[in-house]
Amino acid sequence: MKVILDGMGGDNAPKEIVKGAVEALALCDGEICIVGDETQIMDELKECKYSGDRITVQHASEVIRTDEAPIKAVRRKKDSSLVVGLEMVKDGRGDVLVSAGNTGAILAGSLFTLGRIQGIDRPTLASIYPILGTDKPSLLVDAGANSDCKAENLLEFGVMGSIYMEKVLGREYPEVGLVSLGTEDTKGTMLTKGAFELLENAKLNFVGNVEARDIPKGICDVIVCDGFTGNVILKLTEGLAWNILKLLKKKFTEGIKATMGAALLKGKMNDLKSQFDYSEYGGAPILGVKGPVVKMHGSSSANAVKNTIVKAIPYAAEDVVGMIQSHTENIEEIKMRTV
Amino acid sequence: MKVILDGMGGDNAPKEIVKGAVEALALCDGEICIVGDETQIMDELKECKYSGDRITVQHASEVIRTDEAPIKAVRRKKDSSLVVGLEMVKDGRGDVLVSAGNTGAILAGSLFTLGRIQGIDRPTLASIYPILGTDKPSLLVDAGANSDCKAENLLEFGVMGSIYMEKVLGREYPEVGLVSLGTEDTKGTMLTKGAFELLENAKLNFVGNVEARDIPKGICDVIVCDGFTGNVILKLTEGLAWNILKLLKKKFTEGIKATMGAALLKGKMNDLKSQFDYSEYGGAPILGVKGPVVKMHGSSSANAVKNTIVKAIPYAAEDVVGMIQSHTENIEEIKMRTV
Repeated sequence: MKVILDGMGGDNAPKEIVKGAVEALALCDGEICIVGDETQIMDELKECKYSGDRITVQHASEVIRTDEAPIKAVRRKKDSSLVVGLEMVKDGRGDVLVSAGNTGAILAGSLFTLGRIQGIDRPTLASIYPILGTDKPSLLVDAGANSDCKAENLLEFGVMGSIYMEKVLGREYPEVGLVSLGTEDTKGTMLTKGAFELLENAKLNFVGNVEARDIPKGICDVIVCDGFTGNVILKLTEGLAWNILKLLKKKFTEGIKATMGAALLKGKMNDLKSQFDYSEYGGAPILGVKGPVVKMHGSSSANAVKNTIVKAIPYAAEDVVGMIQSHTENIEEIKMRTV
Repeated sequence: MKVILDGMGGDNAPKEIVKGAVEALALCDGEICIVGDETQIMDELKECKYSGDRITVQHASEVIRTDEAPIKAVRRKKDSSLVVGLEMVKDGRGDVLVSAGNTGAILAGSLFTLGRIQGIDRPTLASIYPILGTDKPSLLVDAGANSDCKAENLLEFGVMGSIYMEKVLGREYPEVGLVSLGTEDTKGTMLTKGAFELLENAKLNFVGNVEARDIPKGICDVIVCDGFTGNVILKLTEGLAWNILKLLKKKFTEGIKATMGAALLKGKMNDLKSQFDYSEYGGAPILGVKGPVVKMHGSSSANAVKNTIVKAIPYAAEDVVGMIQSHTENIEEIKMRTV
């Protein structure tokens, strides 16, 4: 297995990216090829005192910035670390691409370079959703790639998310739920009602509608929604958790009694904080394109890079892309039947 | 001012409803008329040792249950506490209706009995959104009444929410934000892009798009979104906060050191819990119908009932309904201009 790593994407590139690659070697077999400015990457490898042969460097002279218009950037910057990396996966010179760069560019680049899987109308970004107090996160699909969706797209998200959950995260016969206004079958919008019918007819362990209040409890393994809703769920969770922890910290330093109590609870508070730390869970896979691609958070630390590389290997090795391809006939059939 | 109180709606009716009414008297002027089964309500008043003349009872023989189909229930049960109460507001025998009953029935009943304000296509349910660490909650419109919306509806929500925030919650020139995928003007779905244009042209303090991660920080006074998104925001907040507190409680009893720490922090933890307690903030107003109506949570306690009654009085006294009516001309004009 050879992981292609975009060395220049994200806020902390190339330093944290290279550091994460070196750290990942201890946890997995295979090779890593870092794509980007050769001089900078070699310097960082030296910094990490790395001198082995499992990391190679592929030079690319351009970088796509986070604030660039995705489609234009991907079309124009043919020698960017992202596009060069994607070409390597396409050519078979690598098995999976990992990048912390511009999300839109990763999506557009994956679509242009690798192509869409037949039968999949909308490739999607799936994100791990941590469930507090457990080590069994849920998978949220779509996590923000497709803001305006049709019912058929939500079916695709459910099918692809279910395969990824089973093959990569090792959850057998994953439960798939549809975000809606209530748990009753009849509740929802025109979009969710249409998607409900399609998901019910798919070869999935579909558990029906789920309410947003039950998502943090881990109500199901795969949470299906449109990308607008997925974005709201992810960002609200992040914002609210951050706010609660901030308020706790403030309250816990008001007065001597509280400060003493807080000192005794410091370890427990850190446990809690780490539960919200996305860097522990690996990145977000792009599903529906003809090759495995994983997007990391733009501000990924070396630790996040390391964990993402480790999780990216089964994504490539288990041939999730092939599995999705073999399910598309089934998808087409369901779509035809219920239209 | 005379508050009409649905004595039979909600999980804890009539006991907590009546108790809340008695408690409210100490905090406000005016009268309360409790509508429902006379015998049961009189019994509860006796239980509260109430013998004054500021509470009266209006008998109604029927009750609309939470699980009933709203429109059918409102049409058939003409002598239900909800419908009788709404008729009283319509006739001028009362100034505002407060109910903890079936949300759909309150919405449908308000629409059928009181009628829609001209120029408002979709009456809405607005909900208080508590901002941790402050006593300045935001207002979320729509909180779940209208799941499929057009851009014009979001404009209406913004205008009505802004008036309510200013007149009832006393926030001058309230900042109105639109929930979207990013803060840039161009980000969003077809729906939010359309709504952005309309809100920008309205006589509002429109601050543009807001991201879900900033909602818990109190990014703006009035948060505008479709009812599906509003429902997700409210329920996810509730579920996540509950989950975090549950996990903290668990962690804080693991081991002697933690238990000691938790004992020292008990007061602070209770402070935090009360910040999530919706019963402190009063109910959710129905906006866009020709009369003030306030919906409380189905499981409202006497404390929630008391606070809702107190907040319902300025809603009626400040003539929010009249204010909305006088703004509809402006709304129609904006809709025409941008279509």
